[in-house]
Amino acid sequence: MEVAQVLCMKGGNGDTSYTQNSLLQKKVISLTKPITQEAISNLYCNNFPASLCIADLGCSSGPNTFFAVLEIVATVDKVLKKMGHQLPEIQVFLNDLLGNDFNTIFKSLPKFQKDLEKTTGAGAESCFVTGVPGSFYGRLFPSESLHFIHSSYSLHWLSHVPQGLESNKGNIYMASSSPPCLLKAYYEQFQSDFSLFLRCRSAELQEGGSMVLTFLGRRSEDPSSKECCYIWELLAVALNDMVAEGLIDEEKMDSFNLPHYTPSPTEVKCEVGKEGSFTINRLEVSQVNWNAYHGEFCPSDAHKDGGYNVAKLVRAVAEPLLVSHFGDGIIEEVFSRYQKIVADRMSRETTEFVNVTVSMTKRG
Amino acid sequence: MEVAQVLCMKGGNGDTSYTQNSLLQKKVISLTKPITQEAISNLYCNNFPASLCIADLGCSSGPNTFFAVLEIVATVDKVLKKMGHQLPEIQVFLNDLLGNDFNTIFKSLPKFQKDLEKTTGAGAESCFVTGVPGSFYGRLFPSESLHFIHSSYSLHWLSHVPQGLESNKGNIYMASSSPPCLLKAYYEQFQSDFSLFLRCRSAELQEGGSMVLTFLGRRSEDPSSKECCYIWELLAVALNDMVAEGLIDEEKMDSFNLPHYTPSPTEVKCEVGKEGSFTINRLEVSQVNWNAYHGEFCPSDAHKDGGYNVAKLVRAVAEPLLVSHFGDGIIEEVFSRYQKIVADRMSRETTEFVNVTVSMTKRG
Repeated sequence: MEVAQVLCMKGGNGDTSYTQNSLLQKKVISLTKPITQEAISNLYCNNFPASLCIADLGCSSGPNTFFAVLEIVATVDKVLKKMGHQLPEIQVFLNDLLGNDFNTIFKSLPKFQKDLEKTTGAGAESCFVTGVPGSFYGRLFPSESLHFIHSSYSLHWLSHVPQGLESNKGNIYMASSSPPCLLKAYYEQFQSDFSLFLRCRSAELQEGGSMVLTFLGRRSEDPSSKECCYIWELLAVALNDMVAEGLIDEEKMDSFNLPHYTPSPTEVKCEVGKEGSFTINRLEVSQVNWNAYHGEFCPSDAHKDGGYNVAKLVRAVAEPLLVSHFGDGIIEEVFSRYQKIVADRMSRETTEFVNVTVSMTKRG
Repeated sequence: MEVAQVLCMKGGNGDTSYTQNSLLQKKVISLTKPITQEAISNLYCNNFPASLCIADLGCSSGPNTFFAVLEIVATVDKVLKKMGHQLPEIQVFLNDLLGNDFNTIFKSLPKFQKDLEKTTGAGAESCFVTGVPGSFYGRLFPSESLHFIHSSYSLHWLSHVPQGLESNKGNIYMASSSPPCLLKAYYEQFQSDFSLFLRCRSAELQEGGSMVLTFLGRRSEDPSSKECCYIWELLAVALNDMVAEGLIDEEKMDSFNLPHYTPSPTEVKCEVGKEGSFTINRLEVSQVNWNAYHGEFCPSDAHKDGGYNVAKLVRAVAEPLLVSHFGDGIIEEVFSRYQKIVADRMSRETTEFVNVTVSMTKRG
């Protein structure tokens, strides 16, 4: 499977689209905002670019795209106003894979420009937005052309499914029952992908430039730990039930694996150290409830149902991958079953995603 | 009418799409290639940017988008190889209005990268493509961030229809029967738009940076001259026939005017002189037959019919504007009538579009 051709958040604006089901990702951006603020403050201590070039990698398409950009630009504005300066010209590069819906992003540019003016007082002519199609596991920008890179909830997607996973029968990701060689294959794929990512970004950032990256990750050193794998194990339960009932071909099930890896802080630190171009300023772990509406005002009764919310969240993220492998005939049934399984588990235990955020600066 | 919201080439890939009907625009890009080559050679005489930033304004979506880029990059490659250098890193900014189909452009990026490698031997990592949504009658890029700007067959579109055109009954553009105040209103709109364009680009280009712009234009000093207005006069004939038959509301017809201006070389020169930031290196006039297949190998019998080709060309360009004003119910009928009218005139006279190309450098 060519991940770059298949991976994307579910498009459009419908009930099961990523646009309508990305509150969790928005919460994570808010949660990591203090780290972004600190990184931008540091940027302006080190040097003072007259015009700022910023990239958001894995920007997707939906309300979070410009939400993340607005948070960053508002932070730059705040930092500079404190120092007695005006907002400089900012060029924002929004990156995602070729299949991402850039048209929808661009159509919401006028709204972003209004929000920007409301938040910072800056006119449209001080923030120039561009779209950059391509995989971040490769070069995307000219050498030393960027000052700041942001990426949230994207880098846990691998460039492709690791080779040689025949032994992962009945699972779709690492699980407690997966053999060690499988865990090794996933880890090595993460190492190779993330170190390539670091090399590319190191070439593209100016000296003193910085990055804030947030992965879906884990606290434990065990890569098959429940805290990161459980959400997918439950999807495998739904798929296996359908295999048992003859609704899904067993071979199809056995050959499906997610191009995904949720690293621990130690693993992230280790790759950054090996690559050698960056100094880590901060490496933090946080968590969010699986149900993004947990503890929030619920706009509708449906949103009170955690199983419903989580099933929609996972569907918005995984449907294109599942459709490309299984076809679209099974989707409604899989997620209807998944919703019930998830609701049952959520009623009995605390279910949280773990986020690993790293802030780093390119060495001189 | 908000031109920026409505103006676009006809999308998709169908028989009447811009993608399938843009051979003429491709011919114009080829026709003006020597001027582009000269401009790029001059760029490298003046200075030697380690990494080159290029913008194509009004890039549209279809085969011409990357055709133009490939011609420019191949020219840079040729110029540099002659000087004993390798192709530098190039960042290409593709600009068009918010409604342009950037998704389709981005999906054809892998093909462009293959073509680039075939033509120059350069890998994907030496040419970084980005999309820039927005009107070129406003700032699109940070100050002094570009080295070379190209625009072909876009700048004859005005930012909006001039005010006060009530007196243009029965016409949709300037015509020999239009009153002088109408010609004046169109000319003033061109002056204000083009001078704004020049101011914006002057801010965005580095010193010594250059532009090659091709307008649909005219040789004559008369703005209602047949060489530039005839193609639209014939469309007005088709529309007026339908008004006479009660198929189009007369008021609707009277309130439709094109946001379009086809300048003479003198008018272009005059605005560049008044704005003051650029030195004109070359100002040339060329022409192409209305029928892009004229003198070409015809892939199908249909293409031998000049009326058919020209009607499809004009439809691909004007349909979105017409639909936004008249609704889509009249389109088939209008262009069926237009095809016959055009075929008749083409059989009796030589019909050519006039192109005005200007190459200029930003003063120190």
